Amino acid sequence: MSSQHIRRSLDEDLRYITTQIAAMGGHAERMVEQSVEALTTGDEALARKIIQNDAVLDGLEREIGERAVEILARRQPMAGDLREIVGAIRISGDLERIGDLGKNIAKRSIIIGEVAQLRRLFVGFAALSDLAMEQLKAVLDAYAAQSVDRIASVRDRDREIDAKYTSLFREMLTCMMEDPANITPCTHLIFCAKNIERVGDHATNIAETVYHIMTGEQLPADRPKEDRSHVVGAASAGNGAEKPDRRS
Amino acid sequence: MSSQHIRRSLDEDLRYITTQIAAMGGHAERMVEQSVEALTTGDEALARKIIQNDAVLDGLEREIGERAVEILARRQPMAGDLREIVGAIRISGDLERIGDLGKNIAKRSIIIGEVAQLRRLFVGFAALSDLAMEQLKAVLDAYAAQSVDRIASVRDRDREIDAKYTSLFREMLTCMMEDPANITPCTHLIFCAKNIERVGDHATNIAETVYHIMTGEQLPADRPKEDRSHVVGAASAGNGAEKPDRRS
Repeated sequence: MSSQHIRRSLDEDLRYITTQIAAMGGHAERMVEQSVEALTTGDEALARKIIQNDAVLDGLEREIGERAVEILARRQPMAGDLREIVGAIRISGDLERIGDLGKNIAKRSIIIGEVAQLRRLFVGFAALSDLAMEQLKAVLDAYAAQSVDRIASVRDRDREIDAKYTSLFREMLTCMMEDPANITPCTHLIFCAKNIERVGDHATNIAETVYHIMTGEQLPADRPKEDRSHVVGAASAGNGAEKPDRRS
Repeated sequence: MSSQHIRRSLDEDLRYITTQIAAMGGHAERMVEQSVEALTTGDEALARKIIQNDAVLDGLEREIGERAVEILARRQPMAGDLREIVGAIRISGDLERIGDLGKNIAKRSIIIGEVAQLRRLFVGFAALSDLAMEQLKAVLDAYAAQSVDRIASVRDRDREIDAKYTSLFREMLTCMMEDPANITPCTHLIFCAKNIERVGDHATNIAETVYHIMTGEQLPADRPKEDRSHVVGAASAGNGAEKPDRRS
């Protein structure tokens, strides 16, 4: 093959990988959005549909992984092309996990069912999920556009998700304390909220990977990685006092 | 360079990667073990040490990732060598997450502090953690020995972890219902248990990656991926009745 021909084949391979990642991204987004809808509307049929759909994402991740290794072996890409292939493996892993988190919310939504007392928590829950979905969309757009413009802001906004999650966590604890009947559904709801917070973490991972693909550098400095609900202390849950965060 | 020379250089690179993964594995193991110790003994100083130590694991993951991409570019490895490099990227990601989970347990252990009423839960908690640590050790041994002999059993035993987690989950719900003062510490404890269950999931991921490195094939069939606590229904938490699991 001529070197031009090789270049063209590699470009086709890269385009294929990018398309598959976009497909995974769209699928993962929908799974999370629909799982939140199933939860907040008590739509059990939708929840079951989401649970079944997860297999699609697993299949896509596996396919991208196999294809990526094949491209590495055949085309022996260098520099930016190489980072793009390795990055695709990482991103597909994050998207597969996002799908799992949506599936887990769907499962828990079936268990929670319709609990009138939880309804007031859904406002904060929807706000949390809107934030996380915005982050995910922004980072998938950045990947598709091969642009690093919004990458740093995506990562920084992860702090907002964490703050919202921590405040929702408090509300949910209060809800459990009000009525023991709320304890089981609220525990599942806390996990649902935690799942959404983790969607934000995965979006941040993807942001870091996209930045690395585009620049060859690590996104600089301190990343906001975890929720702060661990600072909601046993004694302070009701009054909002916090221990200082000793995150290293 | 002669082809023999290239082969020798590649072998050295692969050995370096394997050594770094082993170092990460040992570090991640210790973090989780010590976090469980900090939690069950209320050792705050130990917890703070673990939180600080997490940076080591983050650094190792980054270094392995960079080195792996460098090896791919320079040596253009094929077949098993290629799978080994790509596999190392995946495994280091799982080990970094395991370290994060240990760190999160350490943080929560500081908040939980010494709650006498929770002490009885620590028996089940320690049993859960022993199981997960056994899995992790087995899979790291398999990686170091380049052996697939125990891989399938590692994955299958993940079901035991899930079952133990689900039973502990029930116990913790009961504990919360007995006394509202238990709600906040127990919620943190549920997250700690969930973290341990996820250590088991990451061990399973590593098992799958090791199998793929060694054989070039996917570990066949159905993997047990998630806990079953989502089947602990709102109405059934106290009596142990379960809805059927509709996992796809």
